[in-house]
Amino acid sequence: MTIQFGYELQARDGKARRGVVHTPRGDIQTPAFMPVGTAGTVKGLLPEQVRATGADIILGNTYHLMLRPGAERVARLGGLHAFMRWDGPILTDSGGFQVMSLASLRKIDEQGVVFKSHLDGSEHAMSPERSVEIQRLLGADITMQLDECIRLPAPHAEAERAMQLSLRWAERCKAAFDPAGGGRALFGIVQGGTERDLRLRSAEGLVGIGFDGYAVGGLAVGEPQEVMIRVLSETLGALPEDRPRYLMGVGTPEDMLLSVAEGIDMFDCVMPTRAGRHGQAYTRFGRLNLKNAKHAEDLRPLDEDSDCPAMRDYSRAYLHHLVRSQELLGAVLLSWANVHYYHSVMRDARRAIEEGLYADHVAATREAWARGDESAA
Amino acid sequence: MTIQFGYELQARDGKARRGVVHTPRGDIQTPAFMPVGTAGTVKGLLPEQVRATGADIILGNTYHLMLRPGAERVARLGGLHAFMRWDGPILTDSGGFQVMSLASLRKIDEQGVVFKSHLDGSEHAMSPERSVEIQRLLGADITMQLDECIRLPAPHAEAERAMQLSLRWAERCKAAFDPAGGGRALFGIVQGGTERDLRLRSAEGLVGIGFDGYAVGGLAVGEPQEVMIRVLSETLGALPEDRPRYLMGVGTPEDMLLSVAEGIDMFDCVMPTRAGRHGQAYTRFGRLNLKNAKHAEDLRPLDEDSDCPAMRDYSRAYLHHLVRSQELLGAVLLSWANVHYYHSVMRDARRAIEEGLYADHVAATREAWARGDESAA
Repeated sequence: MTIQFGYELQARDGKARRGVVHTPRGDIQTPAFMPVGTAGTVKGLLPEQVRATGADIILGNTYHLMLRPGAERVARLGGLHAFMRWDGPILTDSGGFQVMSLASLRKIDEQGVVFKSHLDGSEHAMSPERSVEIQRLLGADITMQLDECIRLPAPHAEAERAMQLSLRWAERCKAAFDPAGGGRALFGIVQGGTERDLRLRSAEGLVGIGFDGYAVGGLAVGEPQEVMIRVLSETLGALPEDRPRYLMGVGTPEDMLLSVAEGIDMFDCVMPTRAGRHGQAYTRFGRLNLKNAKHAEDLRPLDEDSDCPAMRDYSRAYLHHLVRSQELLGAVLLSWANVHYYHSVMRDARRAIEEGLYADHVAATREAWARGDESAA
Repeated sequence: MTIQFGYELQARDGKARRGVVHTPRGDIQTPAFMPVGTAGTVKGLLPEQVRATGADIILGNTYHLMLRPGAERVARLGGLHAFMRWDGPILTDSGGFQVMSLASLRKIDEQGVVFKSHLDGSEHAMSPERSVEIQRLLGADITMQLDECIRLPAPHAEAERAMQLSLRWAERCKAAFDPAGGGRALFGIVQGGTERDLRLRSAEGLVGIGFDGYAVGGLAVGEPQEVMIRVLSETLGALPEDRPRYLMGVGTPEDMLLSVAEGIDMFDCVMPTRAGRHGQAYTRFGRLNLKNAKHAEDLRPLDEDSDCPAMRDYSRAYLHHLVRSQELLGAVLLSWANVHYYHSVMRDARRAIEEGLYADHVAATREAWARGDESAA
């Protein structure tokens, strides 16, 4: 029997949900973090390492992959899974966010967007239909609708215009999407800036069209954390219980914990790998800057109790040396450690929800981050 | 019983030698390639990956490590083995070569060398005694004498002066060296440019002092390959049969094969990792430039028969994409593949010597490199 895409709610604790997203390429335990494989690689990590950190699913960036190596080329090479040796599910974004943040000389109208590549200046067009087609060529297990992301803060009228355009694009994506036997999924994206009325109208419009999952877009673009959490608290109630909810591009471990409390099931973020390349480590003691001279003779690993080799087996003194020396291995080890830590935050959140202790868990975790590890030094 | 340092000759084929260097930290099968762990890391690779490529020993650079993190600091942190998580033998160079190639404003006299760090301009002094001390602080299993490397071509008188200085420094290194129970080794370095008489006098002088092994230095600095091989053929006969011979900083796989034919047992070179970071792969089909557009849709791995995951499991198309995108993973995979290939060249050479077929093996290997792999495309 073919496994269909679907969400199974297993436990709740307040608004926090513990569940499983079933896909033909494997289950995703939620709340889940999805490492970002921007250009066909989770930066610095072997696919086996990514899997070993606890990743059930990774994300691929349509914008990067359409420019290089190109969606048609990836399809000729057997799809993104074979290309990058990842056999689990892959979610691809629509390309819209990066078109609007990385590309230049863009034009947005009803039809779609025209932009110039940040790589070579070549001109490309992206419509809702083309975005869905590219994601099909890549072989996405979860396809995202094309939407328009605006900068915050934005006037109500501007947020409304972009939200309405995104809704019309959502409808066109739905029409263009071929579920290919039922195993593939299409997610809509709630927009509307920080405006409660717009977010609710966006959610209702998307639910009316009907998607396999719902994302919240346009957040984590510089607004305060409490604004993000407020928007989630005002929005998520309008989304169906039997579909996964994905907060795009978020965030810090604390952002994730607070968003799970509002009912978010899925996250993606470049933060663990980007921070790793810049000498930062996310740990249960909070964030450590390994560049800092105080680590120079610290023989402790990042976390002696971790089951991640990068966290457990290398001294902070060595990591400090690698970071200071700009050694590749420093970027590799810290990216590995951070992605592992993000997954452990999600794993611990899942357990706390199952036990009905989520609020206590969040409080204790935040306290541990704030306390740091100086007492153990 | 404590294992002493020593060389065991197991087979010969012409002048080529197959043997074992015994050390308290493990045996080194020779001919051996030693990956270079410049600044406490074989660039881009985990220690477990380095070991899995077939490395019995790695090299550490005294110059880099004395500047950062500092020899005394490494000692306080438990030595280089613990610091970088490598429990096999480590050979450290004397620092001399890099002082003379990387540092600036140097002064060389009888006492030693004074130089300014390429990192921060700070001034440092290095004498034969200090070089030996630094290598002891690092925890070297094989310590190299301080020598003076000159640029080639050089006038006979200049080559002679530097050779004589290196001999006097060799004597001081021998006096300063503490074998610490007998398990540690000190190698002398034959100098003398491309002059037969100087090389022979250098070798005889070193043998008179008496070392645990003998290196040939001052080659692979731009001279033609045939000059290098000629110098080896004129020099190695003057070295004792019962000590390992190490050709410093060499080279390409072909350089190594031809040097083994002259009786060299050990090599080190940054080429496999440096080439890997620049998109080059060394394979049994010769050197491949993965940047080249012809690889863009080539689904073959670098070598489907290899037991190295980096060579066997990733398509050339994917490697091409990673290299073009300047992704960390491209540098990691190609460094891994290249270090593995270098070790497989040495492994195959050892087998051919054992079988008494070394000359045929060299001819067949060179032919395979020249032929390439287009027939299989």
